[in-house]
Amino acid sequence: MKLSEIAGIIKGSLTGEDVEITGVCGLDSQKPGTIAYAQDRKTLEKLELSDAAALILPTGLSCNTKPFINSDDHKMAFSKVLDLFNPYKPYKREIYPAVYIEKGAKIGSNVTVLPFTTIMDNALIGDNTVIYSQVYIGKNVRIGKNCLIKAGVKIDDETVMGDNVIIHHNAVIGGDGFGYMQKDGKNIKIPQIGRIIIGNDVEIGACMTIDRATVGETVIGDGVKIDNLVQVAHNVKIGEGTVIASQSGISGSSTIGAHCMIAGQVGIADHVGIGNSVIVLAQSGIGSGKAIENNRVIFGSPARDAIEEKRILASISRLPDLIKSINQIKKRLKID
Amino acid sequence: MKLSEIAGIIKGSLTGEDVEITGVCGLDSQKPGTIAYAQDRKTLEKLELSDAAALILPTGLSCNTKPFINSDDHKMAFSKVLDLFNPYKPYKREIYPAVYIEKGAKIGSNVTVLPFTTIMDNALIGDNTVIYSQVYIGKNVRIGKNCLIKAGVKIDDETVMGDNVIIHHNAVIGGDGFGYMQKDGKNIKIPQIGRIIIGNDVEIGACMTIDRATVGETVIGDGVKIDNLVQVAHNVKIGEGTVIASQSGISGSSTIGAHCMIAGQVGIADHVGIGNSVIVLAQSGIGSGKAIENNRVIFGSPARDAIEEKRILASISRLPDLIKSINQIKKRLKID
Amino acid sequence: MKLSEIAGIIKGSLTGEDVEITGVCGLDSQKPGTIAYAQDRKTLEKLELSDAAALILPTGLSCNTKPFINSDDHKMAFSKVLDLFNPYKPYKREIYPAVYIEKGAKIGSNVTVLPFTTIMDNALIGDNTVIYSQVYIGKNVRIGKNCLIKAGVKIDDETVMGDNVIIHHNAVIGGDGFGYMQKDGKNIKIPQIGRIIIGNDVEIGACMTIDRATVGETVIGDGVKIDNLVQVAHNVKIGEGTVIASQSGISGSSTIGAHCMIAGQVGIADHVGIGNSVIVLAQSGIGSGKAIENNRVIFGSPARDAIEEKRILASISRLPDLIKSINQIKKRLKID
Repeated sequence: MKLSEIAGIIKGSLTGEDVEITGVCGLDSQKPGTIAYAQDRKTLEKLELSDAAALILPTGLSCNTKPFINSDDHKMAFSKVLDLFNPYKPYKREIYPAVYIEKGAKIGSNVTVLPFTTIMDNALIGDNTVIYSQVYIGKNVRIGKNCLIKAGVKIDDETVMGDNVIIHHNAVIGGDGFGYMQKDGKNIKIPQIGRIIIGNDVEIGACMTIDRATVGETVIGDGVKIDNLVQVAHNVKIGEGTVIASQSGISGSSTIGAHCMIAGQVGIADHVGIGNSVIVLAQSGIGSGKAIENNRVIFGSPARDAIEEKRILASISRLPDLIKSINQIKKRLKID
Repeated sequence: MKLSEIAGIIKGSLTGEDVEITGVCGLDSQKPGTIAYAQDRKTLEKLELSDAAALILPTGLSCNTKPFINSDDHKMAFSKVLDLFNPYKPYKREIYPAVYIEKGAKIGSNVTVLPFTTIMDNALIGDNTVIYSQVYIGKNVRIGKNCLIKAGVKIDDETVMGDNVIIHHNAVIGGDGFGYMQKDGKNIKIPQIGRIIIGNDVEIGACMTIDRATVGETVIGDGVKIDNLVQVAHNVKIGEGTVIASQSGISGSSTIGAHCMIAGQVGIADHVGIGNSVIVLAQSGIGSGKAIENNRVIFGSPARDAIEEKRILASISRLPDLIKSINQIKKRLKID
Repeated sequence: MKLSEIAGIIKGSLTGEDVEITGVCGLDSQKPGTIAYAQDRKTLEKLELSDAAALILPTGLSCNTKPFINSDDHKMAFSKVLDLFNPYKPYKREIYPAVYIEKGAKIGSNVTVLPFTTIMDNALIGDNTVIYSQVYIGKNVRIGKNCLIKAGVKIDDETVMGDNVIIHHNAVIGGDGFGYMQKDGKNIKIPQIGRIIIGNDVEIGACMTIDRATVGETVIGDGVKIDNLVQVAHNVKIGEGTVIASQSGISGSSTIGAHCMIAGQVGIADHVGIGNSVIVLAQSGIGSGKAIENNRVIFGSPARDAIEEKRILASISRLPDLIKSINQIKKRLKID
């Protein structure tokens, strides 16, 4: 593809030679003939010396060594270029052999189902949805349009999800909530009879788990993005547009507002209430029943205001010296 | 179902109108026509104003706005009501088409096997056990009666489990223990030839992993309940009735006693010995080879007595102020 | 098998009666007729009183109560004995019924494929590789010789791996990298068009996840060993021979050198650079963009030199006493 064609598609302005582009590269994957993206001057300086054939740059930056395309909306421009060279083409629209679909299931038009997938009674699959191999879809499940369900995903009975949902491999939607009562020294299982509601435009990571509610609903709001290996327990509610990074866990009945950012390996205990636009930094822990106001940035275990936590962490590194000072003072004052 | 019928089934006493009940609700899922449960006065006050049609209450509490059922054993009563309205009915007892069962496997009576499940030679499946789709059961595996194995579970060769075991989707029973020796700068794999023994009445979470022993056995005792995404390494022994919350990890050869409660995201290193009825609070870390006595409550990383840890955590938040005090003192005493 | 035969195979020297050996045991799994291994005097003392019939010992140690085999290379000797009694025999070399292999896939000689596995177009499977049930292998995937892919593993399009790779059950190779840009309050997905390269002699744990690169490659070097439930994000590079324990997570674009040891539940943020032969102790956290030099041992969250961290941890336990001392000093000096 000619660089000028790319410039046309992303509505950018081309400076320099109209070279042929065969792919996309990054700093750690340079290849002749490819196009790369620098979002700032620092990256640009490194890419000027790279093997890349051309660059995409924000308006205002220019490159001395290669042709480049300037774009006002440079991130989106780069994203479009990635799509131009995307080798992960959709599978052809068909029901493959060796699938098990119960008669009562309703399959929309242009649906793809790969081999060894099971779809149980009364499930409903929306138009243009692609379902890979070894997926299990239980009774009464509702899946919207244009969804992508990767291999090995398990969606148990009664789950409802919207359109444009992506679920990565081996994710589990619909395990039982983890609830027991103690009786005569035994753990007696509490039936988990609720269900899971997933909105539109949600992305769910590989090997992550969402439990259904004890009663009522576990809710994943529109536009929520969840990374691999995250745990979402029974009756959790996650607000619109919230992003949760890998290996975080959210315990039963906790609520997270809209547009929050939960970093990796965060633990949120049960019955926590987190407001909107809250940022929780990595490896933080939020104790049972805590409430976090809108727009806070919190950090640490137990989590507190991030600025305060960073001040405390800085103090901790000075502790051995503080002990020396105190001993010196006590000696001076003749305190034992 | 009439409220009086429910009262009869759970052996409670009804006060107020004998209304029709169509389901169960919670505080976050109120619906007209449903019954809810308040275990204490605080929840009762909120539910009095809810849309619920009736309540289950401990003996001694009463509701001014709705009919209610009092029960001495109120938790168990509510659990029974959940079961009355449970939409997750068992699948019909049959071997579905498109399963692969080797001739040498022994399948009990009334067993259900859903499509695309593989059962290898000499495996034994007890009566009334239900096995979902895309399950793998290796050679010589023994599964007891009345077990429920959800979709995508993998149980490798030689595993033995008791009756009434529930295993949630995509759990893995029987990966190799993680053992290597260093030789000439290479990691040489140590063969992992042991197996896994799982008792009766065990529940195992989605996407959790249990490794088989190097030699001997990894043991999960009767009545143990393990949540999603937990790691249990080779040669671990977990005592009867112990409960382990999501994303905790137990390293090789560690032993956990009976009736312990391990909260979420706890890390237990190798060769740890934990007594009976120990409580380990969330995100704690227990170092290699440590011994924890019976009935202790521990917390922190490294974990110590929970009361002491909480005192230390309180002290840490005062650190920046302490540094100011010490600087003030040093100034006063003219110490540099 | 006679003890003398075993001594011959492992090239050790036998002392005592030439008894019949029927299996291997450990301290926690003693059985008459079995052979056990003591790598040091302390274990030897315990095993002298065990039910084991014979011992393997380092040259220089001897047992008073049982016959034993001395070996200079005692760890390797024990490893060989484990293999002699390994019940986990390979499956017969054949393509089982009920597999779905697209015509364009190239399957080497002596390959085993168990039921309900899907192999898509243009995939290449090397000689002697064994693939269990319910595995998904996408388009253009290259798998080397002598690999072992356990049940439920998902390997998405374009992944390339070497020879002698072991992948445990339900691992996911090839989820999308977790990348979004914010636009008008929405999370817009950035296409993830890179791939994953896995070297020779790699072992990958159950339910672990490796994401493909945004552009370029996520790289797992030769001889890397990764435990269960680990997360490896997009564009991560892991050097030769590095070992990563369970539940650790490595964020986007981070680099780990050769021969590192990453303990369990470690969190490594994005764009971190770790040198060679670095040891990261359990539950440590390494912040975004940090660089760690070769041969360092680090610990804590935020991670620092392990010796310093241990000194700080010791100081922290003294904090409540320090506060008392400071209060005493302030009183003496009449400071408020």
